[in-house]
Amino acid sequence: MKETRYFFVPDAAKQIELPDDEAVHAVRVLRMQAGDEMMLMDGQGSFYRAVLTLTTQKRCQYEIVETLPQKRQWKGCIHLAIAPTKLMDRIEWMAEKATEVGLDKLSFLDCAFSERKTLKLPRVEKIVVSAVKQSRKAYMPELTEMTPFKNFIQQHTSGHRYIAHCYDEVPRVNLFDELKAVNEDEDTLVMIGPEGDFSIDEVRLAVDAGFISVDLGKSRLRTETAGLSAVMMMQLAKQC
Amino acid sequence: MKETRYFFVPDAAKQIELPDDEAVHAVRVLRMQAGDEMMLMDGQGSFYRAVLTLTTQKRCQYEIVETLPQKRQWKGCIHLAIAPTKLMDRIEWMAEKATEVGLDKLSFLDCAFSERKTLKLPRVEKIVVSAVKQSRKAYMPELTEMTPFKNFIQQHTSGHRYIAHCYDEVPRVNLFDELKAVNEDEDTLVMIGPEGDFSIDEVRLAVDAGFISVDLGKSRLRTETAGLSAVMMMQLAKQC
Repeated sequence: MKETRYFFVPDAAKQIELPDDEAVHAVRVLRMQAGDEMMLMDGQGSFYRAVLTLTTQKRCQYEIVETLPQKRQWKGCIHLAIAPTKLMDRIEWMAEKATEVGLDKLSFLDCAFSERKTLKLPRVEKIVVSAVKQSRKAYMPELTEMTPFKNFIQQHTSGHRYIAHCYDEVPRVNLFDELKAVNEDEDTLVMIGPEGDFSIDEVRLAVDAGFISVDLGKSRLRTETAGLSAVMMMQLAKQC
Repeated sequence: MKETRYFFVPDAAKQIELPDDEAVHAVRVLRMQAGDEMMLMDGQGSFYRAVLTLTTQKRCQYEIVETLPQKRQWKGCIHLAIAPTKLMDRIEWMAEKATEVGLDKLSFLDCAFSERKTLKLPRVEKIVVSAVKQSRKAYMPELTEMTPFKNFIQQHTSGHRYIAHCYDEVPRVNLFDELKAVNEDEDTLVMIGPEGDFSIDEVRLAVDAGFISVDLGKSRLRTETAGLSAVMMMQLAKQC
């Protein structure tokens, strides 16, 4: 039995052919031909069983045979906002793993102690799309451009919002204990700082803006590990 | 104020000088000199405040000023047994992240569908030591050589033992639900299979040997992500 191949096609229901890179992959790598079955993922909650109707060297037209709406796998919105690490590969694996584990929104923060001030979002997006396909997620996480910390904390006003940091001077509660205690349907946002942590001024600004000050347990975690830990905690607290 | 530097020195209390690679790092990279303070970690539960007494180009002698026994950060033993991935970098990051999050024992399994049949343990050990230092863990996780699956499941008899897999034919319970329901002081072992999963025969053998059949939630996870997820679940269930 041939393994079913999955392709990421935004607006799959409105299109009739695979995007360029997916078409090249289908034809040149997988050597698929007209008549072959495949599965399309639109990243907006549906899979589609489809059949290839026409292939050329660079193009693949398809016809949808069946629409398969997917159930949500967790409750509420899981949102991680993180200051990207100096080394891109660390934040890239975090994006990959967080997508596998499952999140709805990934934002990048420009903080006082950030060593990385710019980020190529299309590169992260490519990794996230690949993880969405590999882990068969029905929804593509929303990615947002690097935002200055002060602007970011003013943007978000609904749901539960947390800032994880390492300052003993600002009282903290354990994130997972908090998540277990609140309604799992509500949206949740956790902010994780850069390698040198948030500045204490940033922590105080966030608390003033309504963020709850939290820790992630007793371990001393790198930025990217803290980000993934936060996503796992939100997942465990919000699974259906 | 100078940042305190941490060095990994097995049997630190019985030694009087840094191991070769740590000495080279102290002298050539950090340019430390006699009189400088540092912190030693023995990987067996203690930190030591120490002073350098003599440095040459390759050697560093020290004197311990204060012994600082560290508290355990979680209850019982956290043990992950995993079939290493085909690509070494994936299993290496898993070892790094699992060490940061915290585990006591990491074993490697040779399974029916394993694509990787050999593993250079010293390489993994080096990564784990680096993560122990970076995350200031008092205990060095025990690493064990690749073991054939059938031998491994016969070796372990105490505590709670789980096998995570994807076969719908073998009933599974959710790992995290199970972990929350049992006594957190008891030792816990979770087995994770290779990229192609355990064989169904392996799952049945494990269940016959007393392992509980579990899943890690609804997400389809890569081997290395499943390993890290299992460690995070054990951590969250066993934190002091």
